[in-house]
Amino acid sequence: MDVPEVPEKVDPDLLTAVLDGRWAELRRGVRAQMAEVEFRDPVALDVEAHRAQVLDQLRELAKTDRPGLGFDPAYGGGGDVGGSVTSFEMLGYGDLSLMVKAGVQWGLFGGAVQLLGTARHHERYLRAIMGLDLLGCFAMTEHGHGSDVQHLRTTATFADGGFVVHTPDAMATKEYIGNAARDGRMAVVFAQLVTGGESRGVHAFMVPIRDESGAPLPGVSIEDCGPKAGLNGVDNGRLRFDNVRIPREALLNRFGDVAEDGTYSSPIESDSRRFFTMLGTLIRGRVSVAGSAGSATKRALALAIRYGEVRRQFAKPDGDEVVILDYLAHQRKLLPTLAKTYALHFAQEELVSKLHDIDASAPEEAQRELESHAAGLKALATWHATSAIQAAREACGGAGYLSENLLPALKADTDVFTTFEGDNTVLLQLVAKGLLTSYKHDFEDLSPLATARFFAEQVVSTVLERTSARKAVEALTVGSDAEVFFRREWQLRLFEDREEHVVEGVAKRLRKAASDPFGVFNAAQDHVLRAGRVHVERLVLTAFAAAISRCADPGARALLERVCDLYALSAIEDDLAWFLGHGRLTAARAKAVTAAVNSLCTQLRPHARTLVDAFAIPEQFLAAPMLTS
Amino acid sequence: MDVPEVPEKVDPDLLTAVLDGRWAELRRGVRAQMAEVEFRDPVALDVEAHRAQVLDQLRELAKTDRPGLGFDPAYGGGGDVGGSVTSFEMLGYGDLSLMVKAGVQWGLFGGAVQLLGTARHHERYLRAIMGLDLLGCFAMTEHGHGSDVQHLRTTATFADGGFVVHTPDAMATKEYIGNAARDGRMAVVFAQLVTGGESRGVHAFMVPIRDESGAPLPGVSIEDCGPKAGLNGVDNGRLRFDNVRIPREALLNRFGDVAEDGTYSSPIESDSRRFFTMLGTLIRGRVSVAGSAGSATKRALALAIRYGEVRRQFAKPDGDEVVILDYLAHQRKLLPTLAKTYALHFAQEELVSKLHDIDASAPEEAQRELESHAAGLKALATWHATSAIQAAREACGGAGYLSENLLPALKADTDVFTTFEGDNTVLLQLVAKGLLTSYKHDFEDLSPLATARFFAEQVVSTVLERTSARKAVEALTVGSDAEVFFRREWQLRLFEDREEHVVEGVAKRLRKAASDPFGVFNAAQDHVLRAGRVHVERLVLTAFAAAISRCADPGARALLERVCDLYALSAIEDDLAWFLGHGRLTAARAKAVTAAVNSLCTQLRPHARTLVDAFAIPEQFLAAPMLTS
Repeated sequence: MDVPEVPEKVDPDLLTAVLDGRWAELRRGVRAQMAEVEFRDPVALDVEAHRAQVLDQLRELAKTDRPGLGFDPAYGGGGDVGGSVTSFEMLGYGDLSLMVKAGVQWGLFGGAVQLLGTARHHERYLRAIMGLDLLGCFAMTEHGHGSDVQHLRTTATFADGGFVVHTPDAMATKEYIGNAARDGRMAVVFAQLVTGGESRGVHAFMVPIRDESGAPLPGVSIEDCGPKAGLNGVDNGRLRFDNVRIPREALLNRFGDVAEDGTYSSPIESDSRRFFTMLGTLIRGRVSVAGSAGSATKRALALAIRYGEVRRQFAKPDGDEVVILDYLAHQRKLLPTLAKTYALHFAQEELVSKLHDIDASAPEEAQRELESHAAGLKALATWHATSAIQAAREACGGAGYLSENLLPALKADTDVFTTFEGDNTVLLQLVAKGLLTSYKHDFEDLSPLATARFFAEQVVSTVLERTSARKAVEALTVGSDAEVFFRREWQLRLFEDREEHVVEGVAKRLRKAASDPFGVFNAAQDHVLRAGRVHVERLVLTAFAAAISRCADPGARALLERVCDLYALSAIEDDLAWFLGHGRLTAARAKAVTAAVNSLCTQLRPHARTLVDAFAIPEQFLAAPMLTS
Repeated sequence: MDVPEVPEKVDPDLLTAVLDGRWAELRRGVRAQMAEVEFRDPVALDVEAHRAQVLDQLRELAKTDRPGLGFDPAYGGGGDVGGSVTSFEMLGYGDLSLMVKAGVQWGLFGGAVQLLGTARHHERYLRAIMGLDLLGCFAMTEHGHGSDVQHLRTTATFADGGFVVHTPDAMATKEYIGNAARDGRMAVVFAQLVTGGESRGVHAFMVPIRDESGAPLPGVSIEDCGPKAGLNGVDNGRLRFDNVRIPREALLNRFGDVAEDGTYSSPIESDSRRFFTMLGTLIRGRVSVAGSAGSATKRALALAIRYGEVRRQFAKPDGDEVVILDYLAHQRKLLPTLAKTYALHFAQEELVSKLHDIDASAPEEAQRELESHAAGLKALATWHATSAIQAAREACGGAGYLSENLLPALKADTDVFTTFEGDNTVLLQLVAKGLLTSYKHDFEDLSPLATARFFAEQVVSTVLERTSARKAVEALTVGSDAEVFFRREWQLRLFEDREEHVVEGVAKRLRKAASDPFGVFNAAQDHVLRAGRVHVERLVLTAFAAAISRCADPGARALLERVCDLYALSAIEDDLAWFLGHGRLTAARAKAVTAAVNSLCTQLRPHARTLVDAFAIPEQFLAAPMLTS
């Protein structure tokens, strides 16, 4: 198939400029800082040595201005939320244990103090947190409750002018808590606040867990989670509290407070709504995970594509052995994956920008929509990382299995990204729920009960009022396959039309929920998840198209257009059964989609190296022996 | 959708009897032996301690009759090829390093001596190999040649009545060789045999590599491959030879010999054909990998399904928290995967039986077909292991990421299965080639050149002469969706029809190869791979159907019928775009396929535990703390 042309050669720096986007200056600065630091591959270290190395690296990092970026300038922070998230993203190029440890310390622990606390907490803790004089934990997940955090069972009961924090049983043990097993001195503990005999829902409390010497404080039991699949430089542990007393001021009281007499007050009346508002303020962590998953993916693809250009196997008719990236099957493994990595990058860039710009005065729907966007992108970006890094490992054969070639650690470290900061399956349900309710419903309450009741009680009219994208897409299908396929407008309308159709279908199914809420919800669950996914895919394509429009250089722009085409057409190919089954593509055109993907692979093959070089990953993170021998 | 009924409860032992198949007695014996042995989880061991533990376990294993099963009874072996492969399969339930180490020692090293050597080698080595008095390596892969083993570059040059083994450069270094870094004393080295100034292709030689004390012998350089993603209990290393002299008798001379005067002789004239015949005799290793990939998959699914039955999250309308396997999305993650695991098990069982029964007098086409079958099943079984174990890990959330819960090691250890014993992508090409040539062509020569030339020179008539399955399938599509979908005959014909169509399409494409052999081959590569895959999927479904017919108990049989339906219908769902795009299913029926898969998930949900219990995995390999707390 005839694909629109691209120049023979494009300078990767021109692409880097587009990729770097709004925080380009910060990215350049971080790269310069990184260039000074040697990559210390932890592969030969045991768990304790790895943890020690990561803590050392964390202390080195604390000497830069990056940890403070997300904090209040009044206490020495940078007040630059987008820059902070971007800086976490770039930590994803190195040892991911360091990224996670930094994320726990400054993103989760520090972020909770900043965003859930008030001046008294900021004054007391923020500088110490930024400078690592206080290492802390974010103790939310419990053994029995991970996704369903609203039903955590640790309690914080007001008594004698303070709170008593208590773990009622083994299922309420705080689980997988980073910084807990070794380094943390304090924890932000999420617990059911009880005062006057009444529970007011989950709140966060500052609870000291170790003394200066590192010994657990009285009433606090700490257990090491032991070896993990990866991220062994992070000291994850379990925390249990046996009637631990903390002062009244330990409550992070931005969204709810208890007076000296035990009276509870809050600007938000509903316990549930208050809790999900609190959670909503903490989305930076989720956004950072999506970003660093992207960095790990880029690194894996850079390694695999470089290897694909040096590794030869089997002779051609002219006698030369073929470079394996010249095989279509190899291109098919890596290039659509690379295109999707570009697409997700631009979507992430857009999300970070939105996160940076939103303020407290924004309408609640805008906040909910941002949370949905963050949840959906986290799910897609982390699943993409898992499959892309797997593909990269396989594409490097036996060499990819040797630790020295860096892919094993990338695979093992990122594997849990699909689970932590929100299980992906649960997050996609959250996205779908937002779509169906136009972001007007209590948002994070994801129980089947709440969801099903909502639909049983309401007429889901909003989704049905939308204008149909289908007519728009039909007008764009006139022409030869090549003419149609490379129209961005056609691709966008096709994605939009699919989303409308799927969301409407889900709404219709769920409206029957009155009779058997759980049964109806459960029977529609695969459609619910599809709705979430296709919505995010549409956002991603839109973001890619918008990013291209910011590229001034015509050559670089032409190349990005084709990468975007490859993302769009391979996403269509992945979901071809839907497009065929719903009459959106004819059988002939469906076959042509596959031909177009193949043609784009052939066309982009000579640019593969340029496309990964444009990520500008510091070279020390790509120093795999397989590339030089 | 109405699914045919199954009894409320089925005794897992009835299913075990069907799964155990022809080597049931041996399986029971191995289980009894395994029950005596404690599972020593290597997770807390460093590399050297892990290697030492695996060697100890190997010595314990050597005391049983299992290692000898595949060897000649004249030297104390069992003469039971099928039993030998089944015994390797069952090692796949434990530490996979032990399975691989045993496979290297007895399968690859011992197997090469048995199958490529003659009486003088058997007499001298077999007892020592079985009893571990001689530990050895299988030194085939080189740094520069992995898939393309015909072009290995190590040489064995006849001179002064013996051979000189030499590594000409770094690319000819033997790479990833198991038993090389620590324990091996000897290696079967594959090298280009040169005599009288003429190269006669790749042959195998017995080359001592270490003295009794374990020091490398003069001229032999040994390097450790270092840490790997997994399988760290296996001492993989690199071997280089600097003009190492070995006696003439060191040549494993079943398929080619050199006389004292240097004259070469062989029963097979063509160098290439001889080499691929030699390789063909070594397929037991490939079959064993498919089998042990299956065991690892079963273990991962047994863990995930047990967890899915104890883990609860989110409350139902009646207040109880929902067991997560009750969610459709969770069933969708695990149950079609479980059904495919059953299907691959029965296909493996059939393959092992064929391997056991074939003898030297079988027509060459039958041998080639068996090799193709082994290659294809290895590819599908190991890709399935990678994705199923990934799904199992994700289905266990954070608990699945902790080493104590066993899934991390399963993931890391099996990851290379898609690469070793033949890269899966290359293996599927081999399958396709066999289909296109009716197994009459020099088989393992997979270079694009050879393949393309073949098609340029021949009229590919065989595939076109076949009777069309399409008419047969059309007659079977009459009736309601439920009537049609649960007809085994319809499923089988649908798979057969797809295979015929895809293979014909590839033949048509490749017949244009004369003009530009590499270009035409490469442009069709995705179709070639599809041909290989759909062929194996048809074999797998056929094997499942045949196994069910061996089940006498009506209840167990009814349950297996539904598991087979779930395999068939979810495979159709995975390839729905093809069936729709080629007019094999209407849009309405395609949607109904998804509904049928959902209905089967709901129906099989109460039997999930029974289905994994039927694997009869020794309990000590399922002792994950997440299942009891």
